[in-house]
Amino acid sequence: MKKMVLSILVENTAGVLMRVAGLFARRGYNIDSLTVSETETVGMSKMTIVVSGEDEILEQIQKQLSKLIEVKEIIELKHGASVCRELILVKVAVDATQRQQVLAVADIFRAKIVDVSTDSMMIELTGNQQKLDAFIGLLGGFEVKELVRTGITGLTRGNFDMLAGELE
Amino acid sequence: MKKMVLSILVENTAGVLMRVAGLFARRGYNIDSLTVSETETVGMSKMTIVVSGEDEILEQIQKQLSKLIEVKEIIELKHGASVCRELILVKVAVDATQRQQVLAVADIFRAKIVDVSTDSMMIELTGNQQKLDAFIGLLGGFEVKELVRTGITGLTRGNFDMLAGELE
Repeated sequence: MKKMVLSILVENTAGVLMRVAGLFARRGYNIDSLTVSETETVGMSKMTIVVSGEDEILEQIQKQLSKLIEVKEIIELKHGASVCRELILVKVAVDATQRQQVLAVADIFRAKIVDVSTDSMMIELTGNQQKLDAFIGLLGGFEVKELVRTGITGLTRGNFDMLAGELE
Repeated sequence: MKKMVLSILVENTAGVLMRVAGLFARRGYNIDSLTVSETETVGMSKMTIVVSGEDEILEQIQKQLSKLIEVKEIIELKHGASVCRELILVKVAVDATQRQQVLAVADIFRAKIVDVSTDSMMIELTGNQQKLDAFIGLLGGFEVKELVRTGITGLTRGNFDMLAGELE
């Protein structure tokens, strides 16, 4: 199983998300995460979809997506030639002792404390997936009450725009 | 027009995203942004959807969503009772002079420079929507080559869990 990050430029119509999601659902392709929002161009949205599968399946997904009329461009965000980032918010249950311990973990990752209450703390962290997974792993000793991730978004690096498909 | 941020806990099935997106598309509801990814619970995903509309429409959307069998919980993330965050990546075209100017803008917002090439810089910034919009506004004097946002994600604040629906 390989992971692929696709950055898809689409026309911002009411049905585009349904059609993209439908394509994945009908064929049983698994979406690891999906983000969609506006871009620098009015009327265009960008979806970033992370999918897992064998090489053949991943190739098929790209082909199927490119057939959708609203899809204007598909770029695979490859490791090294792109910057991929994700944001998480984690609410951890804490007593006074644990608060210090969680602060110490947050400090290591330069995470931000965005909310504190009598019995919980909320932490915000941004990074690549490895960093976020390591952080969540270190919080394993505490009671995670809630956790939410944006899913990955990304852009190709400068000077790599033309090469993105050829590298690696 | 009002903006509403919904945090929706769903079963992680192949069709759930299609059904949620289909509900919005068929009724012509406008999605400002959508993120979906895993949570602290295996088999469950969390979607965060930002929608705009009149009060009546927003109420209808919540009712329709709650009828979907995969939807287990819907929470409205209200201002003050929740923390909402978004991440953006912006690639800006720069020459040597502009590089200094863009660095200065990034510094004000404590944004991170995540990539530099001979003719561009990529900046990462995390914050609430007002902060991100202000940042994008300040970059208006430069040539924005690419911009991508994760869309908003959020959690209710500690001690507010029970009150979230009653505040404001």
